Amino acid sequence: MAQQKKRTEIAELGEFGLIDKLTAGFAPRNASTVRGTGDDAAVLAPPAGERTVVSTDAFFEGVDFDLTYFPLKHLGYKVVTAAVSDILAMNARPSQLLVSLGVSSKIPVEALQDLYEGIAFACNEHGIDLVGGDTRASMTGLVISVTALGHAAEERLVYRTGAGQNDLLCITGNLGAAYMGLRLLEREKRVLADIADPEPQFAGYEYLLEKYLKPRPRTDILAALADEKIVPTAMIDLSDGLASDLMQLCRASKCGARIYLDRIPIAKQTTALAEEMHADPVVAALNGGEDYELLFTVPLSMQEQTMRLGLVDVIGHITPESTGCFLVTPDGSDIRLKAQGFPESVRE
Amino acid sequence: MAQQKKRTEIAELGEFGLIDKLTAGFAPRNASTVRGTGDDAAVLAPPAGERTVVSTDAFFEGVDFDLTYFPLKHLGYKVVTAAVSDILAMNARPSQLLVSLGVSSKIPVEALQDLYEGIAFACNEHGIDLVGGDTRASMTGLVISVTALGHAAEERLVYRTGAGQNDLLCITGNLGAAYMGLRLLEREKRVLADIADPEPQFAGYEYLLEKYLKPRPRTDILAALADEKIVPTAMIDLSDGLASDLMQLCRASKCGARIYLDRIPIAKQTTALAEEMHADPVVAALNGGEDYELLFTVPLSMQEQTMRLGLVDVIGHITPESTGCFLVTPDGSDIRLKAQGFPESVRE
Repeated sequence: MAQQKKRTEIAELGEFGLIDKLTAGFAPRNASTVRGTGDDAAVLAPPAGERTVVSTDAFFEGVDFDLTYFPLKHLGYKVVTAAVSDILAMNARPSQLLVSLGVSSKIPVEALQDLYEGIAFACNEHGIDLVGGDTRASMTGLVISVTALGHAAEERLVYRTGAGQNDLLCITGNLGAAYMGLRLLEREKRVLADIADPEPQFAGYEYLLEKYLKPRPRTDILAALADEKIVPTAMIDLSDGLASDLMQLCRASKCGARIYLDRIPIAKQTTALAEEMHADPVVAALNGGEDYELLFTVPLSMQEQTMRLGLVDVIGHITPESTGCFLVTPDGSDIRLKAQGFPESVRE
Repeated sequence: MAQQKKRTEIAELGEFGLIDKLTAGFAPRNASTVRGTGDDAAVLAPPAGERTVVSTDAFFEGVDFDLTYFPLKHLGYKVVTAAVSDILAMNARPSQLLVSLGVSSKIPVEALQDLYEGIAFACNEHGIDLVGGDTRASMTGLVISVTALGHAAEERLVYRTGAGQNDLLCITGNLGAAYMGLRLLEREKRVLADIADPEPQFAGYEYLLEKYLKPRPRTDILAALADEKIVPTAMIDLSDGLASDLMQLCRASKCGARIYLDRIPIAKQTTALAEEMHADPVVAALNGGEDYELLFTVPLSMQEQTMRLGLVDVIGHITPESTGCFLVTPDGSDIRLKAQGFPESVRE
């Protein structure tokens, strides 16, 4: 984003001055954070008997985000969501974050402060401590590397590997909205490229933009599952698209799956924009990605408790490995899922 | 490095195929690794009562390394050393690693396998488990983000903050060799740029190349300190150069320091190449960086035990904060240390 306000060059502050400025105000609040930023490493002490979970993700300008329409505050928020989502997918409580930046000299300090404001906002919202990181020069665009940590009692941890025969496949939220938000932003970018005072046409699609630019991690699911005493048999976060992530879960659990096209939750705005763009909303749901919702399995016997959560939809069930992963259309045809791309017969 | 052998495009394998290929053979060996790669997050359980330490670093092509002379196996080894060095600087045992890559399509799978071979070699050597990571497209060069974890009993942890009045300043190994190794490689790159079958002149400087291309983390210090029952009062790893890292330690410990120029250990090859290049080896030691040695403080009363380690040099001592950080030359002059650059009077 063009910064009209004050512009401070990174070189004016130096590496340490910059890190101090960016991480000021990130005081640790979790009991499990013994020492945060400012040393060679952070020191953590998860509650006695609990396991530590850790995951890392990287985000590259021009590949994962386009700064011409991605406000840096939102980007800061979103990278936290993406990192935290992996912790939630283990049914663990996110507690710490480390953020490394690769920054080209064209980015002013104020822009990085915006990014960190978004990171701070997300950390505050979810009770997460920023405990470390690194800011380096990059020859090219912005690179953001995020490591998230969390903890959970061993018996509450959920892997991708535990799905059993006939388990129900459940998902939170709805799918494809983030992808359609991205399509909308790309369209407006193209349309407005040569216009002096552009007024992008987003009216009616605000939800899609929010799902793409500022997705919220499903921390609410953790508490809800605990309240209902549900421990899913397997779980994965939906970052690559339902088809790819379901196949990953099935591969890890050595099983197949059947999901029903008409049970895949798709928001009205997703369908509306897809229709406007002559696209298939189901393709967006299956292959769009970046939903940061959770896909999990529960035994058939837990159907009632699961529905009581009020937060999930049952979209199908687990089958033997030999049968593979299929999408069942309303007319009863079976379409084999593919991780990349979508069967031609449904795409049209 | 140009790959003369078989060239497989990353696209042939896809993201998951690539990750599978690269991480095959990285079976966890640490008791503290409950679950390694292959899930949304790794699961760790440090020994009962111990703290977890975690640090993250990123390395950018064109800034931190130049692939025209940096063999990828060595680079893999070196990024592990750099990450592990931060864990050692806490007096903690390194145990797990997560590696995220940003890879441009110009890099073949075989090159990434070389990189991972170096990572695997370093992990094997130091008993570290690779437990996670991510491989993504990058629009530009290679980006390597490494998160290292380790653990230690609380009473053995060493921060930057604990240096006390009159404590001795100790360093492991010698300084400036990595920087002179880099200078040598840069010189040969320039000299040989237009020559068909280049034969770079490295004879007599092999040690400098090794210190730059394949520095070893000082895991030996951990055991030695434990054997002698020494817990340093403060410690930092030497990655930015002695001047900068000493000033960081002093800032954290709210103290000053005096170090003696003629006590700074500098290898013969470092001095020889510096003289050949009309450079000052002390400048290389103070500001060169990437030594991955350890700087630590011990109470004056522990001088004898510390010398028994046989692995360290005492280069000075801690002073009150108000006096600042000084380098004392053999003729007795005091030169105030600066984090960036070196006093003109000594540079000549």
